[in-house]
Amino acid sequence: MESNAVMHVTVWNEFIHERSMPVVQKNYPEGIHRVLASAIEQRWGANVSVHCATLDQPLHGLSDDVLAKTDVMLWWGHAGHDKVADSIVDKVQRRVLEGMGLIVLHSGHASKIFRRLMGTTCMLRWREADEKERLWIVSPGHVILDGIQGEYFELAASEMYGELFDIPQPDELLTVSWFEGGEVFRSACTFRRGKGKIFYFSPGHETYPIYHDFNVQRIITNAIAWARPTDGTVQLAGRNIKQPLSPIAPNTPS
Amino acid sequence: MESNAVMHVTVWNEFIHERSMPVVQKNYPEGIHRVLASAIEQRWGANVSVHCATLDQPLHGLSDDVLAKTDVMLWWGHAGHDKVADSIVDKVQRRVLEGMGLIVLHSGHASKIFRRLMGTTCMLRWREADEKERLWIVSPGHVILDGIQGEYFELAASEMYGELFDIPQPDELLTVSWFEGGEVFRSACTFRRGKGKIFYFSPGHETYPIYHDFNVQRIITNAIAWARPTDGTVQLAGRNIKQPLSPIAPNTPS
Amino acid sequence: MESNAVMHVTVWNEFIHERSMPVVQKNYPEGIHRVLASAIEQRWGANVSVHCATLDQPLHGLSDDVLAKTDVMLWWGHAGHDKVADSIVDKVQRRVLEGMGLIVLHSGHASKIFRRLMGTTCMLRWREADEKERLWIVSPGHVILDGIQGEYFELAASEMYGELFDIPQPDELLTVSWFEGGEVFRSACTFRRGKGKIFYFSPGHETYPIYHDFNVQRIITNAIAWARPTDGTVQLAGRNIKQPLSPIAPNTPS
Amino acid sequence: MESNAVMHVTVWNEFIHERSMPVVQKNYPEGIHRVLASAIEQRWGANVSVHCATLDQPLHGLSDDVLAKTDVMLWWGHAGHDKVADSIVDKVQRRVLEGMGLIVLHSGHASKIFRRLMGTTCMLRWREADEKERLWIVSPGHVILDGIQGEYFELAASEMYGELFDIPQPDELLTVSWFEGGEVFRSACTFRRGKGKIFYFSPGHETYPIYHDFNVQRIITNAIAWARPTDGTVQLAGRNIKQPLSPIAPNTPS
Repeated sequence: MESNAVMHVTVWNEFIHERSMPVVQKNYPEGIHRVLASAIEQRWGANVSVHCATLDQPLHGLSDDVLAKTDVMLWWGHAGHDKVADSIVDKVQRRVLEGMGLIVLHSGHASKIFRRLMGTTCMLRWREADEKERLWIVSPGHVILDGIQGEYFELAASEMYGELFDIPQPDELLTVSWFEGGEVFRSACTFRRGKGKIFYFSPGHETYPIYHDFNVQRIITNAIAWARPTDGTVQLAGRNIKQPLSPIAPNTPS
Repeated sequence: MESNAVMHVTVWNEFIHERSMPVVQKNYPEGIHRVLASAIEQRWGANVSVHCATLDQPLHGLSDDVLAKTDVMLWWGHAGHDKVADSIVDKVQRRVLEGMGLIVLHSGHASKIFRRLMGTTCMLRWREADEKERLWIVSPGHVILDGIQGEYFELAASEMYGELFDIPQPDELLTVSWFEGGEVFRSACTFRRGKGKIFYFSPGHETYPIYHDFNVQRIITNAIAWARPTDGTVQLAGRNIKQPLSPIAPNTPS
Repeated sequence: MESNAVMHVTVWNEFIHERSMPVVQKNYPEGIHRVLASAIEQRWGANVSVHCATLDQPLHGLSDDVLAKTDVMLWWGHAGHDKVADSIVDKVQRRVLEGMGLIVLHSGHASKIFRRLMGTTCMLRWREADEKERLWIVSPGHVILDGIQGEYFELAASEMYGELFDIPQPDELLTVSWFEGGEVFRSACTFRRGKGKIFYFSPGHETYPIYHDFNVQRIITNAIAWARPTDGTVQLAGRNIKQPLSPIAPNTPS
Repeated sequence: MESNAVMHVTVWNEFIHERSMPVVQKNYPEGIHRVLASAIEQRWGANVSVHCATLDQPLHGLSDDVLAKTDVMLWWGHAGHDKVADSIVDKVQRRVLEGMGLIVLHSGHASKIFRRLMGTTCMLRWREADEKERLWIVSPGHVILDGIQGEYFELAASEMYGELFDIPQPDELLTVSWFEGGEVFRSACTFRRGKGKIFYFSPGHETYPIYHDFNVQRIITNAIAWARPTDGTVQLAGRNIKQPLSPIAPNTPS
């Protein structure tokens, strides 16, 4: 990672389907992470330093050093959720609570890290039927939706993700998706945990070229800017404060 | 548990301090759970069947049968958090997501089950200095505060619990506590996880007779009524829905 | 209103369409308010005393005496929003802030009272095309959804109400509706204002017999129970507190 | 307003106390608005164009042209709330719903515009007794708190503002204040209304030099950046959509 960048982003991808399924290979020949990394670099230029990490690397590419430097992490996983070591999940969770932003994409809803941070199953309905998905904006003016034109946008073919999505009520609900087959879905949600900001965004099935879509890239890159940590120094550990913090006495205006 | 009761409540207490610390023994000779159980029975009478369970029982008193029958569980723990088996925590979490209410009391903030459901450290500041705690109502009219007179109520001596309390933003914030030494605390909070309702209430240090207090008992017993499950049948498991749910065609009014 | 009832409900209806449009007259020969009143009486029996009020009555049927006695008010309006006197809206708003529950139905989204309480335009998209509406549950276990079977329910023909619905983010989002024509809608929402609980529920177009539907009646009658005031006595007026509330000094446990 | 600036800010101040009370004149010889304007210019430099407006100007300084250009408005009022014309309040409300940010300061809690947007009385407790106020951070990592060091910060002498603060539950609660006399207060809150972001911040009594404080200036200037509108084009007016939005048919991946 270069030291001049304002923001260090790590794109984590399990990188399994791209190497085993021809249709996915065609959409993402170098992996979903590379398409996301390019979109981030194109959007934020020299302000950002993007790093990729995959499941099969030592420590899944998430060494202590990488974690410490990362301001915002993207997470794409599906077939390999169970292969992610708990010790790494522990560390990612700790970093989120310390302030690292986390963007959880599509099937990442069932990842260990997202379930850990939500406290629920994060399960949902799903169907692969090449359906149109229409994402309606319900938080107009939100910075994560900046630049999205109109009241909704569409994906011509998408995997259906439907309610009930077993998550805590989001802090902010940004879009609700409509699917041809009869379902709806809370497709863009924000959460705060500790000092960290979390964004879940559902579009992104590997068999569709969704991460090449302008609106999808716009939302993800907006979310990265939104999720980056501030420089606050509040500590989260439990502390036994032995005495009242300071003498408390009436004061006069200075 | 009797079968005629509308509501089955399990009061779980680690039951450690009451058997080792004279001051706690004096406040709660038969254990904190017995005082809570009495308050619940006194309030709800024949509508409720109350069961107690403690850490040292087999399965911590939380067999599958007990868990399946429990509508609302109270949780008091402190010195023994680490001694609670993960397998039991798994089961309690599952029951909450299925709809069982959970009332987490005082030092239960650091219990495995609460941290599991919140996704954060749940840590806070604390100090034992016999301080006055004044609980200000910020959600007037909430059913959990029903019967509390005035704009605040006080505990003459309480353990200080102070911010930052590392929890997700509560769905509802009911009271904010003021402490003599200079701290504030979000002392009564609600959360929803899956189909389950969760209430965290901070007063209750073992060295003070706080669970004998009228307002504290009132809030806890109100919360039990609030947290009881409804009879909804929504399932939370992930499901692959192979076809659109039903033929979709314009309809005329019946 | 009878004095033995636990809960006094006032069903307010502008009562215009039922007297001018044959199709509405057929669905609601005595007015939408009478169908709602019957459903409430059937559900809650002797626990409830139901009163109806309409736009053309003196003070729109909402005298100070009626308002003072009302625990929960239902509001259905459409063509006559502008005919509701501001002085009555002032009084209804005050009663909500004092703790009166308010259930706003369908086209009541554009009523003066709802817009007043929300602070936004409360506008939305709409279309009358006899479309199927499917209401998906997103807050399973919520007491307002008690007794609703399954993960969604349907209305065979409904007026489309679609996003963007210009409301503040609801405190709780209970259902999201799917419409055949391509829209979604946050169709069941809760809000708190002062001591009052507010529930907005969108189904209910006058040209369809929607208020005869079991699920719709169940949700509305559940909401009435949810919205009823507690007996708390917190006052909301501004107050100049001249002195600190009480001497603040360290205390010892009693 | 200069055209090169990224952000146009209007600081509105009733400007009454500064001209009639010596102590206020001493703190703010040219008016509270001038101190705020300087702080904003010092923080954001050429990125911002700051304009001041006061009650005694024609249209209170808020012509259609000024309103149309304003990205973020600050509002300080107290003695003159009732003197603000309803027609201007209507226009400010409309601009907020269209996306203009609004920062409401201190006694602005009782302004027409804030009450209009909240739907509640916005009343609170208060006392002038030169008390210490300690603001505890409860949303660490929030961009509005960026640069605030430590877990709390203090104002040596402040007017007490206490609960119950009659507002809707904030979308985000950032700080909770502790006062020597025994009160707490939700002192920094965010709300969304339409496309507009609203921030309420309670410190700022005219008899204290609070707007010269570093932390207070930092939070207000942070909030301006947070509240600025995005360039989204979602419209909020009610619309009758006569036909389903587009032909809905199964699609194949492109």
